[in-house]
Amino acid sequence: MTHSSRQARLSAAIGAAGLDAMLVTDLVNVRYLSGFTGSAGALLVYADERAPMLATDGRYRSQAARQAPDLQVAIERAGASYLVAQAVACGTRRLGFEGHVVTVDGFETLSGALSEGAELVRASGAVEALREVKDAGEVALLRLACEAADAALSDLVDRGGLRPGRTEREVRRQLEALMLDHGADAASFETIVATGANSAVPHHRPTDAVLAAGDFVKIDFGALVAGYHSDMTRTFVLGQAADWQQEIYQVVAEAQRAGREALRPGAALRDVDAAARAVIAEAGYGKTFGHGLGHGVGLRIHEAPGINATADGTLLAGAVVTVEPGVYLADRGGVRIEDTLVVGGDSPASAGTHPELLTRFPKELTTL
Amino acid sequence: MTHSSRQARLSAAIGAAGLDAMLVTDLVNVRYLSGFTGSAGALLVYADERAPMLATDGRYRSQAARQAPDLQVAIERAGASYLVAQAVACGTRRLGFEGHVVTVDGFETLSGALSEGAELVRASGAVEALREVKDAGEVALLRLACEAADAALSDLVDRGGLRPGRTEREVRRQLEALMLDHGADAASFETIVATGANSAVPHHRPTDAVLAAGDFVKIDFGALVAGYHSDMTRTFVLGQAADWQQEIYQVVAEAQRAGREALRPGAALRDVDAAARAVIAEAGYGKTFGHGLGHGVGLRIHEAPGINATADGTLLAGAVVTVEPGVYLADRGGVRIEDTLVVGGDSPASAGTHPELLTRFPKELTTL
Repeated sequence: MTHSSRQARLSAAIGAAGLDAMLVTDLVNVRYLSGFTGSAGALLVYADERAPMLATDGRYRSQAARQAPDLQVAIERAGASYLVAQAVACGTRRLGFEGHVVTVDGFETLSGALSEGAELVRASGAVEALREVKDAGEVALLRLACEAADAALSDLVDRGGLRPGRTEREVRRQLEALMLDHGADAASFETIVATGANSAVPHHRPTDAVLAAGDFVKIDFGALVAGYHSDMTRTFVLGQAADWQQEIYQVVAEAQRAGREALRPGAALRDVDAAARAVIAEAGYGKTFGHGLGHGVGLRIHEAPGINATADGTLLAGAVVTVEPGVYLADRGGVRIEDTLVVGGDSPASAGTHPELLTRFPKELTTL
Repeated sequence: MTHSSRQARLSAAIGAAGLDAMLVTDLVNVRYLSGFTGSAGALLVYADERAPMLATDGRYRSQAARQAPDLQVAIERAGASYLVAQAVACGTRRLGFEGHVVTVDGFETLSGALSEGAELVRASGAVEALREVKDAGEVALLRLACEAADAALSDLVDRGGLRPGRTEREVRRQLEALMLDHGADAASFETIVATGANSAVPHHRPTDAVLAAGDFVKIDFGALVAGYHSDMTRTFVLGQAADWQQEIYQVVAEAQRAGREALRPGAALRDVDAAARAVIAEAGYGKTFGHGLGHGVGLRIHEAPGINATADGTLLAGAVVTVEPGVYLADRGGVRIEDTLVVGGDSPASAGTHPELLTRFPKELTTL
């Protein structure tokens, strides 16, 4: 059982941290640990072998029973406070909570459910740390999400969706519709379509700007499948590429390859960033690459690890991350190339080998 | 200036609460007060006439200058902490913060930016209280959002989009695409399309269930325009309505009318709920109506005031709320009818008169 093994990993982690139990209130973390996808709920996980308890409200009674059949389910409107009282009544003295999620007001409410001798102890990020390494079921869903995005972009290009005269908004809508056709539940985030000078804005939002011959068209998008996100950027040229376009495209492509090749289990995160950044700096474009190289992808579009120049820590086998360098020339145009990859392949046997590429749409400079 | 008048209202409120300034970190509240729509930012508002200061990161330098031209803008990665230090350096001793938004970890970080003699004081909900009454600019945007939804549903029906053989998911996709055609930036929330027995589930998510002759089809949806949401539910019958369908439809329609007529400035919120609920209870369906009657709508799809049986407080002139009673017969089908309305009309002159209906799609039982 996937969820029970995740719960067991959390039990071990909180036991090692000297806690008796942990209250999980972040809904993505609740989903990860239990499978429950409702919009209200909290989970109590013990350090010992007692079964976790899920609390939610009456709207989700049947859904909770169906999605989390092995858990105790409490139907309580004030579910998190109920779980605190429940934990304390069952002997918990040190109860972990998510200090990066619980608000100041929420903490006061939870504290009111404590009794003598019990305390709430910060355990911020404990579940996110587990989520950094994906299990096989998660990689399978991430693969589906990336495949839906690949197929949608192929369709878009095959149908002539990228041509002079269309607006950025039109392209966005068609691409998002195609992702749904290919099995996505939704777009992972608001698709970026940036044409001409707009492509020099790293996170441009689509406008009524019209695609024109000679433009770079930068598209950054992803598909959501069963809660898992994909993330990919491709940059095209409409018609013949000018020399400056070919030049920065090749620089970014080379930097992106260097970044992918640096994705090895145990590599320092900042070294991975540096591997790509050095290529861009050596070509003289270092100042135009103002963002980090990549980030983890999973139940959230941005999660641990961050891959950037100030990151601490190392890459873990089984992490799923993006590699997305860019060069942006203000008022002219920019290029970003981004893939989503599994560090160390998708099985323990392959750990240490090259990363598995999940976003497979070609990366050669395509002129349309 | 709309934003400056909102800032002045907040200054007055925090002064009355004995605060020298307030740190606003909820991004929707930052947007409401400043016009800034970036995904990272915080705002410092003083109780006196000093100009507010917006802090955001380097990605949003030009956007902040464009959207909030009258504010001081600080480009700081740790913007909220910077604003705390800034406030204290300028003499603030009692600095309000949003205790319902700031996390326990975040509070610790902010506290580290305080110095001797200054303190952080909870001012939870201060901005949300201002947002409860919409100004003319907000009502205009809410009207546009409701018009986009009305036009999309009309198109859907006119094009035969609701017919036996289609799936709930297909209907959802077409309706959401039509909203974009009519000027929406996005759907306000995941559209509910529930056919047959699914219509008895208040918040059903669209599936591959196929619309069939004789089904109730319940559609709950909204359009997002410039940050403002609309919210409307209509229930149709595919083909001839059975007696039981006609009966519960009329009960809900009558309850909904009673709820709308109870929307008067100064009315107790629970009395508004009771006005509609009594109609359903008298018809013998009281136990099937398990949710509240309505909620405020604005920059969030759900905001103050909640209109339900346990709500405290009264309706304010200028509030924009939904009225959405329902009757749900498990395993058979259900009806909900929902409008979005402005309490007391859209101008001070009309306060006290009937509410202004923003969602104008007809509410008579429509058989398709």
